[in-house]
Amino acid sequence: ENRMSATTDPALKSFIAVPDGHHFPIQNLPFGVFRPRSGGNARVGTAIGDHVLDLAELQLAGCFNGPCLAGTDVFCSDALNAFMALGRPAWREARERISQLLRQDVAELRDNGSLRARVFHPAAEVEMLLPARIGDYTDFYSSREHATNVGIMFRGKENALMPNWLHLPVAYHGRASSIVVSGTPFHRPWGQIMPADSETPVHAPSRGMDIELEVGFLVGPGTRRGETVPVQSAREHIFGLVLVNDWSARDIQRWEYVPLGPFLGKNFATSISPWVVTLDALEPFVSEGPVQDPQPLEYLRTEGNPSWNIELDVLLKGAKMDHYQRICRSNFSHLYWNVNQQLAHHTVNGCDLRTGDLMASGTISGPEKSSYGSLLELAWKGTEPLSLHNGETRTYLQDGDSILITGVCRAGNAVPIGFGEVEGTLLPAHD
Amino acid sequence: ENRMSATTDPALKSFIAVPDGHHFPIQNLPFGVFRPRSGGNARVGTAIGDHVLDLAELQLAGCFNGPCLAGTDVFCSDALNAFMALGRPAWREARERISQLLRQDVAELRDNGSLRARVFHPAAEVEMLLPARIGDYTDFYSSREHATNVGIMFRGKENALMPNWLHLPVAYHGRASSIVVSGTPFHRPWGQIMPADSETPVHAPSRGMDIELEVGFLVGPGTRRGETVPVQSAREHIFGLVLVNDWSARDIQRWEYVPLGPFLGKNFATSISPWVVTLDALEPFVSEGPVQDPQPLEYLRTEGNPSWNIELDVLLKGAKMDHYQRICRSNFSHLYWNVNQQLAHHTVNGCDLRTGDLMASGTISGPEKSSYGSLLELAWKGTEPLSLHNGETRTYLQDGDSILITGVCRAGNAVPIGFGEVEGTLLPAHD
Repeated sequence: ENRMSATTDPALKSFIAVPDGHHFPIQNLPFGVFRPRSGGNARVGTAIGDHVLDLAELQLAGCFNGPCLAGTDVFCSDALNAFMALGRPAWREARERISQLLRQDVAELRDNGSLRARVFHPAAEVEMLLPARIGDYTDFYSSREHATNVGIMFRGKENALMPNWLHLPVAYHGRASSIVVSGTPFHRPWGQIMPADSETPVHAPSRGMDIELEVGFLVGPGTRRGETVPVQSAREHIFGLVLVNDWSARDIQRWEYVPLGPFLGKNFATSISPWVVTLDALEPFVSEGPVQDPQPLEYLRTEGNPSWNIELDVLLKGAKMDHYQRICRSNFSHLYWNVNQQLAHHTVNGCDLRTGDLMASGTISGPEKSSYGSLLELAWKGTEPLSLHNGETRTYLQDGDSILITGVCRAGNAVPIGFGEVEGTLLPAHD
Repeated sequence: ENRMSATTDPALKSFIAVPDGHHFPIQNLPFGVFRPRSGGNARVGTAIGDHVLDLAELQLAGCFNGPCLAGTDVFCSDALNAFMALGRPAWREARERISQLLRQDVAELRDNGSLRARVFHPAAEVEMLLPARIGDYTDFYSSREHATNVGIMFRGKENALMPNWLHLPVAYHGRASSIVVSGTPFHRPWGQIMPADSETPVHAPSRGMDIELEVGFLVGPGTRRGETVPVQSAREHIFGLVLVNDWSARDIQRWEYVPLGPFLGKNFATSISPWVVTLDALEPFVSEGPVQDPQPLEYLRTEGNPSWNIELDVLLKGAKMDHYQRICRSNFSHLYWNVNQQLAHHTVNGCDLRTGDLMASGTISGPEKSSYGSLLELAWKGTEPLSLHNGETRTYLQDGDSILITGVCRAGNAVPIGFGEVEGTLLPAHD
């Protein structure tokens, strides 16, 4: 579609210098919420190179006068919810306008020195916040490789995939309160654990601290209770994507999760990246997911299996390491179930969605061992410890370990765009 | 404690006439949110007999001047959250003041005709709303009888209770968006179902619509991420209790729930009663729950097993019936795990709680068949249909069935108090 592709045109350049390969060229324009470190309210911004563009100041300066945004103050907010609720036409209107304002061949902002001084912040001088008020958090389980790996480890090769898995995108409810923005450290959780050699459980800090490499999407316009969203229009409810690290305490999880699913093994912290990359920005990177066989039921059927080519890296830095080491490279397009199917399935029973709901993919593992998205799989349940460059090994996380997840999209002539990062550090258990 | 028992004194009477056995005598004073049918904003009220007392009007009239409430506008709100966040001293201050204002031997409100005209609404002339903005909803599984019944049906007598069940209060995350207030009808959900005689699933309306008799509590003051609440102080975070009907689609649930737990089988609707009965009002009805054997781990250990004597009735009225018929009588005190243990366990890993979180008990079944809290158990997985007075039978709900749950507390000389009701009607599936 012409109107959209104008904003992803590889020839576009901004008057703000953006190094080649940077996550945030003018073709990306992700949305996020920030607060200047110098003070002031939280507000909505976009990232351009190493700068944050203050969309609230632009809005107050009267720069958003299109049919959807005129008269609103959706960027003067500490959350994206009001903007996301407006729907795709408003998102596109904002994107096109921001793209125009940032073009090197457009004088409007470029040559307005006083406005420029107000609206650009060096990225290092702002604090990034959670991008949305998240009402409900749903975590899917949409990687066949991950589900198979876990199945083999805990149930054996014959029963690796549960009978339902190829028929529906399995999911569970996570806890919204414990979602934190990148850069938020947390303490190793205590919990109830059944030691391997014991008849009685113990109350102890987890010794099975793990990561889960995931990508999630934020819901734009919500739905009414009782309403179903056809898979063909699911996209209208999806604002954009973020990186997710669904930290997991495997020993707590293993003991508690039968029969009602994960609970305290997950809800101490789930980290997300601050910048939301929109579906319009992702358009050049559309790719095809795995062939779905058996064919899903009609209500889940999409034309092909639409996905995006998002290279996902997981890096680890222990307390004694001086730089990050990559421990996994995976790709969003490994996912078996696509986001349209996830959203359609979520509403097939009339469950109402609210603007700001987060739906995460589940651990994204690929076919090779190097693409497994959790330590559980990378170190195969502790039996094959991961070797680090400095001679240390890992089966699960150690105190002081930092985990960084990045995502980069590449395709043909398109200018690559990225997600920035989601980082988190495991602190020692309390006491 | 003297200050508290003054408000539950059986000799207390209000100048508002309250028939004997009414759920809302002056000893109860539950909190809720209502909107006058004649118009106006939602605001906080309490129930006294067949009237609703408008606490927002009382607050605006300057009636709440104690140390916790003076200068606040917590009752001029469409949710109890601000009030609940203030904590127990404020709850008690409000309760004592309201009790005083309503006493028949206190002239202040009784003899103030113009104020009386503003602050009392006949219950039939208000619409009751959800009492709180519920951030996260957790559903426990704390009835041993229920867990055992379900276990026998699906896994056989030998493995009825899972190994973890006697060691921790099992729970899962529910969906906050789909919580509705009593009186909200909903449509039979569609979903993906695996028929008994099939190799492939179908997309169809549920044919296993069930109820779950539960009681939930609302969280008052929240906690910081990383903070644990000792079981001894859990009570400080519990504002009060509501009735809960956790509607369930058994066929959807059965097919989807392995290995991550209930999802679409539950999140189409969960109904709660509008009046929140406080722990202070429940004080005269404290009772002892089942003996816990094995003794729980230290972090879950309470003195005895504190519970409340709350008689719970479930009534059904089919489309062709002219009155409700009771199908279950159970009691809150059957629950194996108490609310203090539930809350302590929920935070043992540092999971943060927010004011307004709802934690429900799970289905409350007792030892006798007549006390089973779900149709799954009452009709034993469809094998023992329930007989109704008009000659009909039920294994699961039929379109047009209304379910009403009530709760009444009784103890010795105490004036009985009640929860009002939670009602819901199943409408036919869409299409």
